[in-house]
Amino acid sequence: MEVITREIKLGTGGNNEIHDLTPHVQREVEDSGLRKGAVLVFVGGATAAITTLEFEPGLLKDLPAALEKIAPYRADYEHHKTWGDYNGSAHVRAALLGPSLTVPFNDGRLALGTWQQIVLMDFDTRPRSRSVLLQIMGVR
Amino acid sequence: MEVITREIKLGTGGNNEIHDLTPHVQREVEDSGLRKGAVLVFVGGATAAITTLEFEPGLLKDLPAALEKIAPYRADYEHHKTWGDYNGSAHVRAALLGPSLTVPFNDGRLALGTWQQIVLMDFDTRPRSRSVLLQIMGVR
Amino acid sequence: MEVITREIKLGTGGNNEIHDLTPHVQREVEDSGLRKGAVLVFVGGATAAITTLEFEPGLLKDLPAALEKIAPYRADYEHHKTWGDYNGSAHVRAALLGPSLTVPFNDGRLALGTWQQIVLMDFDTRPRSRSVLLQIMGVR
Repeated sequence: MEVITREIKLGTGGNNEIHDLTPHVQREVEDSGLRKGAVLVFVGGATAAITTLEFEPGLLKDLPAALEKIAPYRADYEHHKTWGDYNGSAHVRAALLGPSLTVPFNDGRLALGTWQQIVLMDFDTRPRSRSVLLQIMGVR
Repeated sequence: MEVITREIKLGTGGNNEIHDLTPHVQREVEDSGLRKGAVLVFVGGATAAITTLEFEPGLLKDLPAALEKIAPYRADYEHHKTWGDYNGSAHVRAALLGPSLTVPFNDGRLALGTWQQIVLMDFDTRPRSRSVLLQIMGVR
Repeated sequence: MEVITREIKLGTGGNNEIHDLTPHVQREVEDSGLRKGAVLVFVGGATAAITTLEFEPGLLKDLPAALEKIAPYRADYEHHKTWGDYNGSAHVRAALLGPSLTVPFNDGRLALGTWQQIVLMDFDTRPRSRSVLLQIMGVR
């Protein structure tokens, strides 16, 4: 087995913006030359998350709407007292979803469902430059 | 290290049905001959999820009841406008829980707590045939 | 590639207590001698969870407050009928967050953001002794 590291850099608008990472991850797995294994998709930072979602316009609104119930944007957060910023909601949402996802691949193809995409959600309250690390582990 | 792929196929009733995958996963890890490593349990598809739960009848009702607060079955979802189906709730719940889990094993035994089982939750609104991929990575 | 297992033992107070595991995990990765790979952080047991969080006093209150909306401590849970205990809320919260997290490392350093820590949350209703297993997989 081998470990190959790749990085995806992207700019986001924050505010629950959701990005489809699937083509990027698929391409990096193919480029790695590994045929069978798993790719760890990890975002550094505590106000963004990685999960899977059918990437269609309706769900890009529905998922943030559900998270608004759990961690409303305009609530009082203790976090705001610590830093004087206003992204407490972003931190809570990110902790609930988690910063990473591991996806298996065989014959160099990600084992996703047809309507299942790997997505980055950025919950921060301002545009951010994000670095997503791919740790590709497997055999040739 | 080696990578060994196994598949668990199962039929579910959807509608928040929860299945205990632990015996299947444990058996496949033993059959793999690997003694030490990690097994990635991954469900392809955007309306089911993998997590751990004490598999007892009470919690099989309690966990869906909590998710009903976040993503009620009978709410209006933008997703319904895209496809004319009614499983927006299923998509949101699945994205929150996530499609995968990685469990360590040593001496061929999953490192779960006694009251902790690996479960598949199927949120879709109809019976489904599900494929759960196991990517077993480790050493003999 | 190699697999190296380490264990972190800690006592918690339960009741949503959050512990920063980052220094422990970083030290074990360094001690392992592996330079590039991923560490699986896994808690055995169905009433605790692992995620990442900016470890500051405000968020240690904000995250439990959000979970209280989803799975209130003082609600009726079917789980209580099964066992006659009162930690249904703990089980639901733990299932939502999940018992594991995988973090990549390169040059022996965890690829976390500056304000992003690996945390254990213990939701149980009483003090617990917890064992967190680290499965460190990678190359020298």
